[in-house]
This record gives sequence, structure tokens and C-alpha cells, in this order.
Amino acid sequence: MSHFTITKPSPSFWRASFSNPPVNVFSVQTILDLRELVDAAERDSDLTVLLFESANPEYFCAHWDLADDLSGLAGDPPTPTGQQAFVDVLIRLSKLPVITVSSIRGRARGAGSEFVLATDIRFASRERATIGQFEMTTGVAPGGGGVSRLPRLVGRARALEILAGADDFDADLAALYGYVNRSIPDAELDRFVTAFAQRVAGTDRGAIAELKSWVNATTLPEDEEFGPQSDAFFSRVAGPRVSGWISRAFEQGLQQPGDLEENLGARGFDV
Amino acid sequence: MSHFTITKPSPSFWRASFSNPPVNVFSVQTILDLRELVDAAERDSDLTVLLFESANPEYFCAHWDLADDLSGLAGDPPTPTGQQAFVDVLIRLSKLPVITVSSIRGRARGAGSEFVLATDIRFASRERATIGQFEMTTGVAPGGGGVSRLPRLVGRARALEILAGADDFDADLAALYGYVNRSIPDAELDRFVTAFAQRVAGTDRGAIAELKSWVNATTLPEDEEFGPQSDAFFSRVAGPRVSGWISRAFEQGLQQPGDLEENLGARGFDV
Amino acid sequence: MSHFTITKPSPSFWRASFSNPPVNVFSVQTILDLRELVDAAERDSDLTVLLFESANPEYFCAHWDLADDLSGLAGDPPTPTGQQAFVDVLIRLSKLPVITVSSIRGRARGAGSEFVLATDIRFASRERATIGQFEMTTGVAPGGGGVSRLPRLVGRARALEILAGADDFDADLAALYGYVNRSIPDAELDRFVTAFAQRVAGTDRGAIAELKSWVNATTLPEDEEFGPQSDAFFSRVAGPRVSGWISRAFEQGLQQPGDLEENLGARGFDV
Repeated sequence: MSHFTITKPSPSFWRASFSNPPVNVFSVQTILDLRELVDAAERDSDLTVLLFESANPEYFCAHWDLADDLSGLAGDPPTPTGQQAFVDVLIRLSKLPVITVSSIRGRARGAGSEFVLATDIRFASRERATIGQFEMTTGVAPGGGGVSRLPRLVGRARALEILAGADDFDADLAALYGYVNRSIPDAELDRFVTAFAQRVAGTDRGAIAELKSWVNATTLPEDEEFGPQSDAFFSRVAGPRVSGWISRAFEQGLQQPGDLEENLGARGFDV
Repeated sequence: MSHFTITKPSPSFWRASFSNPPVNVFSVQTILDLRELVDAAERDSDLTVLLFESANPEYFCAHWDLADDLSGLAGDPPTPTGQQAFVDVLIRLSKLPVITVSSIRGRARGAGSEFVLATDIRFASRERATIGQFEMTTGVAPGGGGVSRLPRLVGRARALEILAGADDFDADLAALYGYVNRSIPDAELDRFVTAFAQRVAGTDRGAIAELKSWVNATTLPEDEEFGPQSDAFFSRVAGPRVSGWISRAFEQGLQQPGDLEENLGARGFDV
Repeated sequence: MSHFTITKPSPSFWRASFSNPPVNVFSVQTILDLRELVDAAERDSDLTVLLFESANPEYFCAHWDLADDLSGLAGDPPTPTGQQAFVDVLIRLSKLPVITVSSIRGRARGAGSEFVLATDIRFASRERATIGQFEMTTGVAPGGGGVSRLPRLVGRARALEILAGADDFDADLAALYGYVNRSIPDAELDRFVTAFAQRVAGTDRGAIAELKSWVNATTLPEDEEFGPQSDAFFSRVAGPRVSGWISRAFEQGLQQPGDLEENLGARGFDV
């Protein structure tokens, strides 16, 4: 596993630190690593809480790796859920019988936003978190689940604003909308999320699994809802509008530290 | 079209300014004009975003025109949705394959609130927006869709408070509740909503239509839900309690600028 | 009726003041009294609004009476809903054809939280309300409906945080989450809730009943959802982990005024 570093403060509490320099894009290798982590979490009988953090304080996860492609997965057997590989691993993550928490410092856009939306709980640094679904600036709706998960969390109106407007949200506005649970002062974030995770780690694994299964039943999208969204995404990404955007964006510094990645919400429509 | 003035900053961005002096009541003519606008929006292949504003900064839309009646529509063929004419045009508005935005300055009560609830996104002037469903002060529940749309946006508890309490909400409280997306300082509202609309106007019409259809599928009420509500509304409006309220309210200045319209939430129970 | 004192400011407005010294635990007797109150409310043709308050400003309702047991109900006929007695009376409360309001001053934890979640509207004292589901600190998920009601009110992410983290929430954070409708300065709370109730009391009982039935149809859990949750609760409460917690907690001052009850959210995992 090369993109997640796992530490285990206790048998019931795992921390997964994400690192894929320079801006933490989510690539095919990240899918493979997250699958391995989800497999391990499903098998473990002690785990109660799984906390995701970023090794890079500027980028929790910039977005999908637009230099990568999914053809490396082409010969693979069908995924357990039957959905596309990225969607599949996020569905499995969302249904783990443990509580999953994202501690968001830095930017989480596009697939990075969809990744944290597939975890149960999101805490965000007040000064340093930025979250958004920038995809529409390129001419395509998000394909990794955000379209299904956001309306259930923040309601129709704010979901359409986030998705169609494709802008960046800071932590306070994201907390008002319910996009994240809370905005926490950056200096307190690590202590806060650790204390929260330790509370969950101190309770009963079986009771957590029951609790989550009941909440899942009324709050998770049906797996089938994601298929048309990921199909449309790959179809449009291959088309001239989105592929043109991607080419121009790489010329302007995409996936490198600098102005475009820092301000992708503001700059996306001008690429 | 006499109640909406349409301007087109670009082929993909239309602004509709509502004017029906003196307090912008929503009348049969407004239904006919909104139908015409919805028809045009459905047919247009470039349109991506439709923005509603008011020509009157004190009244976005006071409420249904209680001096009007719907008998002028009596000979009409059934509506496309099979629902009552006001409900029908709001259902069709809510399903347009474009993003609809309300920029709320002034009062939006009763049918005016139901109108903005049928648009996708609501931005409200912090100092000058007032929103509410005053109907229960007259003795009848709202009949134009608010009863179905509010719980999905703001949850059961706040929907029942808004509907049963029938009071006015300012923009900040409405934003806390999710009744509007955001409260924006009045001096920034026009620039903010224009910039938002221009972002949506800059993306892909086909991608917007896909996005909205997916969000619609999990967030819109079934059309059939509205029927019993509008039936009960017309039944109670014809009864002595509500018709008595309407008569007294007209004697006290209803539908004219002045204290009653300005403070309808506070004064409604005392009419 | 020994735990609720009913006063009737008008035929359409009843106040129910809860008192079960010293910390207002919810016991079998409270179930029986609440049943009697729900029966009376169902039969009354004038009642429009039912307001719940606490006679103890420190404890709205501490939690379920862990010194009590339900065996006193063992010979009773099946409940009207077929659900366990506590769940049953809360389901019936939630479906009353009147608006129910909780005015929360002091602590409302566990069954106390589930009680207010079964009322339609919650107003909370900014300085003096504390609300939470502490059950997971003992090793069991809440069994009285909170698991079903919270996700519908506050969304998946915040519901899982509240339920799995099992911590206390003050009124402002609870209002941000939608766990309560609003946080009101303590000095204004009584006047505010009375004025709200008087508004509802001034409208039409039939219109309120229609309104609430329409909102119920899209916002209430199915009765059957609660059964597995209460079954699991009683099963785990009888097991060594939870029963051990209860024994130790009584030795440390449970159900008596003092540090443990005051700070149950913070102290629960250390019992």
C-alpha cells in the first residue's frame, strides 16, 4: 500500500494518512490501496473507527488524477458491487461496519470531495479546508457519487448550488450547509478528531455495526443510482469539451502546486 | 407576457423580473405568463440558467392575489401535470432542465414563498428579504406545494414550525434553517447572483440537464402529493373562516402598501 | 397522572410540565402518564398545540430510569402500535393531530432526547439546554427511536456523529445541526415558546390536522423500523457490558444531582 500510511493507536482505532505528492490526486493506485484498506477493515474484528487524514496540509485530495486512466483496471474481474472501480470502493467504504471520519485540512475537490462524502463524518479546518465539486467548470457532472450523496446530506437546493456552481466552499459555509459536520479551528482540529475517534474506539464494535446498519438503511443511495452518473462522466470526459479543458489545464499547471490548483474553484471556468 | 420582463445577458442566461404593482401579488395572469416562460425555457436549446428577480425591492411576491379567482381558467383543458393551474406551473418550473435561481429582496410570503421553493436555488438579501407561509393565520394550510417542498428542504421540525407558526423569517434565520441557500448582504446580492448565474451559464447545457434529472429523481415530491393539498386549500378558502379573514384583511389594507402587508406575519392572527 | 402537570391556558393550548425528582428520569410511570395524556389529546376536539416543559430547570429529562424495569408492563395487552411500550407511546405522540412542542431547559439525554425528538418542534435555552444520546458510552445504541428520527432531521453524517460519539450538544451547536429548531436566550425562552404556541392555538384544528398528516406521510419513520432497535437495546442492556456500566454508574452517583449526571457526555466513557 503506497498511498495510505496506516497507524493503529489501538486495535479499535486506525489512522490512514493519504499521501500522493505533490497535490494528493486520487489515482488508480489510490483505488487499489483503498480497496486493500477496506478489505482489511471488513475482516478485522476489533476495529471500530477509521480516521482519514492527509500528509499534505495544503491538499487533502486535489481531485482525480487526470493524467492517469482506468485502463490499468480493464482486465480485472467485475467489482463486488458491479459498479465502476472508484464508485465501487467508495460504496464499500460507506458500508463498512465501523465509523469512518475525514479530518479535512487543505483542498478536497472533485473526487477528493466524493471520497470524504463516502466517509460517515467530516470535520474541517476552519482556516485551511476548502471543499467543492469543480467538475462542472470542465463541462461534466461529478461521476463518483457526489450527485447522489450531496442532496441527501444538504438538501436539493444546496446540492444543486454546489454541483452546478462548481465553486469552492470554506469550512464555515460548508458547515452551515451540512457539507461537513463542523468547522474546527485549525489549531484544535487534530486534538478534536483524535478525541472523537477515541470515544468511538471505546465503545462496542457490535453495537456500532448495528447502529450503522440501521442508519445505512435509510440514508445511503441504492448502488444502482451511481451507474448512469459514472457512465455519463466517462462518456463526457472522452468528448472534446472536457478533454480540451484537461489539455489546457495541464498547460496551465494542473496537478502541480501553484495558482491553478490553489484556486481551482475560481479559475476553473477560465481555463 | 405582462408580469415578467425577460432580458437575456447571453443565450444561456435569462433574467426574469417580476412586476405586478403595487405589491407583486401572484395572480391568474402571473400563472399564464409563467406558463409561457416555462414553455419557452423547455424549448430553448441554449438556456442553462434562469434567474428570477423582483422589480419591487419591497415585495418579491406578496402572496396569491386574493382579489382574483381561478374561474378565468375554468374552461381550459387539463394542465400537463393534471394538477391545479398554480401547482402545475410550479411543478413544470421545478423540472425544467436548467438551473433556476431566485434572488429574493423584499417579502415573499404564501404563494410567493411557494414560487421560490419551486425554483432550485434561493439567495436572499440579508437586510431586505422576508419569507414565510402566512396561510395558517387565515385558517388554512398552504395549497401550492410548500407543504411538500419544505420538509424535504428543512426537515420535519422546521417545516412544521414554518407552516403551523405561519410567521415571517428573515434571511439569516431562513439560511440557518435551509429555507434559503444563503443570506447575502443586500449591497452584494445583485453582483453575487449574477456571478453565480454566469458560472452556470458557462457550463454545458446537456451536463446540467443530466445533473438536474438525477437530483430531481431523489428530491422532488411526486406530482400526486400536491392534489389533496390544493383541494383542501380551495375548500377551506371558500369556507367562512378563511373568507371572513380575507374580507376583513381587505378592509385593513390587504394588497396595498402599508402596515398589514409589511407585517403580515406578525399581524395575520389579529386581522 | 403523577409525572405531568397539565394546565390549559385555553381549550386549544395545553402545557404539560414534567416532574420526576430529583433528575427527571423517564420511568414506567412516565410511560403510563404520557399514554394517558396522548389518549386525552387524541380525543379532544379543541386542542391544537401541546407544549412540554420541565419543572426542573437543570434536567428536562435526564434519561431512562435505569433503576426501573419494564416488567411491570409484562402482563399488559399489546400496545396499539405493536411496538415496545416506550417506543409505542412516542410513536403515538409523534402522530397526534396537533402540534407538539418541547421547550428544553436543562439536560435531555438518552430517552429524554428521544422524547423531544418525538415531538414536532424543539426550542432550546441557549445557556441551559444540553442534549445528547449518551447510550453508546455504555455500549449500546439508543433503542427508543433516536436512531430512526435523527438521520431524517440532521442527515446521515451528523446523526452518526451524535449517536456514535455519544457526546453532549449545547443549544447553539444543536441548532446548527438541526437537532433543535432554534437556540433561544434563556431569558426569552418562556415568552418565545408561549407566543409560538398561542399562534398555533389561534389557528384551525382541522387545518392543523390536515397539515400534520401530509407532513407525517413524508417525514416519519415506518413503525416497523423501531422494532429491531428496541429488541437489540434490551438484549444488550441485559448483557455484561451495559449492566456492568449501570452498576458502576449507580455507585458513582447516577440518577442523583452531581457531577456524573451533570457531565454524563464527558464522563460516560470513564464510568
